[in-house]
Amino acid sequence: MTIYTAPVADISFLLRRVFGFDAIMASLPGYEEVNTELAVTIMEEAGKFATSVLEPLNRPGDEEGCTLENGVVTTPSGVAAAYLAFAEAGWCSLSGDPAYGGQGLPRVLQILLDEILSSANLSFGLFPGLTRGAAEAIGHHASAELKAAFLPKMISGEWTGAMALTESSAGTDLGLLSTRAVPNADGSFAITGTKIFISSGDQDFGGNIVHLVLARLPDAPKGVKGISLFLAPKFLVNADGSLGARNSMSVGALERKMGIHAQPTCLMNYDGATGWLVGQPGRGLNAMFTMMNAERLFVGIQGLGIAEAANQKAVAYAKERLQGGGSDGTPGPVAIIDHPDVRKMLLSGRAFAEGARALAIWTALQMDIADRHTDAAVRKEADLLVALMTPVVKAAFTDFGFETAVASQQVLGGHGYIREWGMEQYVRDARIAQIYEGTNGVQAMDLVGRKLALDGGTLTQRFFALIRAELDAALPTAGEGLVAPVAQALARLERVTQRLAGSGGGAELGAAATDYLRLFALVSFGWMWVRMAAAVPALDEATAVEVRKTALARFFVERMLPQTLGLEAALASGASSLMALDADAF
Amino acid sequence: MTIYTAPVADISFLLRRVFGFDAIMASLPGYEEVNTELAVTIMEEAGKFATSVLEPLNRPGDEEGCTLENGVVTTPSGVAAAYLAFAEAGWCSLSGDPAYGGQGLPRVLQILLDEILSSANLSFGLFPGLTRGAAEAIGHHASAELKAAFLPKMISGEWTGAMALTESSAGTDLGLLSTRAVPNADGSFAITGTKIFISSGDQDFGGNIVHLVLARLPDAPKGVKGISLFLAPKFLVNADGSLGARNSMSVGALERKMGIHAQPTCLMNYDGATGWLVGQPGRGLNAMFTMMNAERLFVGIQGLGIAEAANQKAVAYAKERLQGGGSDGTPGPVAIIDHPDVRKMLLSGRAFAEGARALAIWTALQMDIADRHTDAAVRKEADLLVALMTPVVKAAFTDFGFETAVASQQVLGGHGYIREWGMEQYVRDARIAQIYEGTNGVQAMDLVGRKLALDGGTLTQRFFALIRAELDAALPTAGEGLVAPVAQALARLERVTQRLAGSGGGAELGAAATDYLRLFALVSFGWMWVRMAAAVPALDEATAVEVRKTALARFFVERMLPQTLGLEAALASGASSLMALDADAF
Repeated sequence: MTIYTAPVADISFLLRRVFGFDAIMASLPGYEEVNTELAVTIMEEAGKFATSVLEPLNRPGDEEGCTLENGVVTTPSGVAAAYLAFAEAGWCSLSGDPAYGGQGLPRVLQILLDEILSSANLSFGLFPGLTRGAAEAIGHHASAELKAAFLPKMISGEWTGAMALTESSAGTDLGLLSTRAVPNADGSFAITGTKIFISSGDQDFGGNIVHLVLARLPDAPKGVKGISLFLAPKFLVNADGSLGARNSMSVGALERKMGIHAQPTCLMNYDGATGWLVGQPGRGLNAMFTMMNAERLFVGIQGLGIAEAANQKAVAYAKERLQGGGSDGTPGPVAIIDHPDVRKMLLSGRAFAEGARALAIWTALQMDIADRHTDAAVRKEADLLVALMTPVVKAAFTDFGFETAVASQQVLGGHGYIREWGMEQYVRDARIAQIYEGTNGVQAMDLVGRKLALDGGTLTQRFFALIRAELDAALPTAGEGLVAPVAQALARLERVTQRLAGSGGGAELGAAATDYLRLFALVSFGWMWVRMAAAVPALDEATAVEVRKTALARFFVERMLPQTLGLEAALASGASSLMALDADAF
Repeated sequence: MTIYTAPVADISFLLRRVFGFDAIMASLPGYEEVNTELAVTIMEEAGKFATSVLEPLNRPGDEEGCTLENGVVTTPSGVAAAYLAFAEAGWCSLSGDPAYGGQGLPRVLQILLDEILSSANLSFGLFPGLTRGAAEAIGHHASAELKAAFLPKMISGEWTGAMALTESSAGTDLGLLSTRAVPNADGSFAITGTKIFISSGDQDFGGNIVHLVLARLPDAPKGVKGISLFLAPKFLVNADGSLGARNSMSVGALERKMGIHAQPTCLMNYDGATGWLVGQPGRGLNAMFTMMNAERLFVGIQGLGIAEAANQKAVAYAKERLQGGGSDGTPGPVAIIDHPDVRKMLLSGRAFAEGARALAIWTALQMDIADRHTDAAVRKEADLLVALMTPVVKAAFTDFGFETAVASQQVLGGHGYIREWGMEQYVRDARIAQIYEGTNGVQAMDLVGRKLALDGGTLTQRFFALIRAELDAALPTAGEGLVAPVAQALARLERVTQRLAGSGGGAELGAAATDYLRLFALVSFGWMWVRMAAAVPALDEATAVEVRKTALARFFVERMLPQTLGLEAALASGASSLMALDADAF
């Protein structure tokens, strides 16, 4: 059952009415021609491609899965052709560097596209997403020769990319990795080791696959400071740009996993594979982390995208399915969307998705500002705000996204548990986004351990002051009933932040991390709901999307935001109840 | 990786120290010989069978799944042999009626066994579980002839049972079902219709399969009052008890589903199948509901069982897996069980599982008291308390159980997402328990719509008074730090209950239902944790299990119970934010 429609009306409302997108773009050199109308046009087209080509492959791709035979990976029927059409239509290059053939459109448009792809077909979206991430790392850190040889075809999508970080005993803690890189006489390196969980590690689209591999040089120090980054393509590239010999790397196995079955997640063997150093020796993690903000934002968007698609399907089902009498005494059967508890599940998903979309746009706007603003101080502040928000977007969007997929599945009852309706696939696919690109626990540690300390701890204070100022400004239009509860939740967040800053760190940070991140996210969503409610025009000129915003804002504030009460109370208890038990006593 | 160990030490602690099991049993006619020692011996044996026979089939059964070829269902390799060994060892008859060959042991032992089965192999556990449920319905409502013909072999496990309720347009609302039953000349009926989602609808263990089918007699009124219950066996039974002709029913398809792959969930076609009326015409739902308490308790136990197994595996992994430095500054890598956030995930699961096990035992004890106590007033009150607690156990245990499976999977990071470790199977299997036997939303409506009103609304008052009295009594031993927060949470629950009683019903009840049930469950778990903490003896004589109880009680009260704050606040907002949007505006 194909249901999904790209949320273009909401995108239009957010860009035009909430964020003043056109004015911001007009102020950023190179983006002057970008505006809401262009964004809407592009997203309408993206929506057409997604619903006509990608979503129809989603369920079949899950059923068929990928195969590995005689070392050759085959993606599910139709995926290769869809990828080639996607690249041919120019979607891979949307935000790519124009110096290498990209369209140079802003990050905001990229994340809107990413959401639509994630809604339609998460497994598919990883191919261009990982290629873009690899291209960004190369763009920032590789030599001019490597850039010239690889970037144009990666940005066009003709070649794809993969990131080879994890090993079986080195996941979250990459300092433990053991893959080696030995210098060759010609300046290249011979890379040997085994990597696991490598998304898009291979495919059958033709072209090349550019692996970015973390490895250790001989005599490199232990730990993260001994890690360097290497570029190792599946096929070596001749001087004329044509594909040469097969490199010494192979797919050892496809991981058998809970979901994203159309995505070939590879165990990769590098057997003296030829590679080239990207960036400085011993600075491999640094090179990976410069693109981490974008990648983690992308993963957060995946959580949003699946939530949007799952919620839309659950709404469609709930309007059709007849069961029971109405809560107002209407004799049944009535459509189950009339039942309050079903509404609660649907509204929770909708309030998350629209709040998250707003926050994603806000964050992507900061990235564009950090990239292009003419004032260096403004660029720097925007960059800090992106750093602060990145773990929140990654972890909270994927946690709430998973919860939304589960709640949407619940709306369908037993029909949600069987494969036919596709709801259980959303749950299985959404689950990975909480794990990869740094588990959500790692994100939470990043927030409390690094991000709260940015700029000497003053960044968070400025961020909270920004929210408070915007709440105050919204009061006349959004109203006390919405603004006051969000301001109270913000005060909770500020109290907890202050307590954490004075806690001395260590176990206190770890014990607080995930609850703190959820509190931070709920306040941020509340802030966005106030901004959205304030942007709704007088009712007689409001569109349907806009009228709905006011009702959703109220639902969010009354039914979801109160979680912040319990989070503050739980956080007040500190670490001791977590650390009391000996490991042996568990 | 086989890890699971049956929680016999905890069972022993709960029965002996917390619930005074031996004294209660001594007071119930027919159970005088039952005591903690016997229970522990039986559960040790059950644990051996579960870990040596059932758990080793769990992952392979998930991989292999069931097949349907030429109308014949085949369960995964080893399942049929395991079932026959299980029945041969007498496990099917544990709590069965001695009049028909059962061992007549109390409900408490049955739910402890059910938990162990659910931990080891949920798909398997459904075969004896559904057989027991069907046998109980027959035992309560069928004619003496039907009982004599079917019960002995169902109780021994030689024959299995299935419940055929749901149709494609009649799930939660069974009043919409359309299967027909037409009288035959000999007093039997010809049943015609299609049922979906029929667990254990067929199998390959040999013997017979006894279907209890809801259907309408000719000229039956519309809605639930037109529904009658029929017994239709796969094979007709000859006068001498031997199996006769195949009945006119067939498996139309196996449902393809998210999990419980070793369980053949059938689409059943009844084509004039011969059946016999069970109970009175038009009273079919009533006959089904008399065994619903036991079935719903069983499903709640499934959530507990999977949580226990998933948590045990995550703990084992967290003790072995080395990553990162210690939060106290220890240079890494340390075992991840030393990281506070990993501990939080593990402790949340443990605090749920042990609190839930206590509450399950308390509830099952009420069932045994309701069944056997010599004082009719005591029996009646216990029966009411079971009715009150049933939706809470079903929904809260399966919700927290699913959350525990997800958190346990998260502990393994990427290794939790791939199939090898079996964690993702726990998540997929646990998910069904939130849906079947009445979705958790239906349970919540049952709680707020029916159970709160029991005995003119005074039952809940007595229940809350019971909790308060036990909290007061526990104060000297459990301490203010544990008791006061639980008492405050109880006060929250009482306030919300009072508000609901005065709300006028309708949408207010539905809008409150799921949040109210979670609040009710958290208070009940807190009550159990206080009772457990109070039962821990002085440290110098406490066992390891008992020392751990104190730490877990504190964790529960400090980190999980605060959710009640947010739930009370969300519930205070009432239904209006849920009902504001037109269905078309979603």
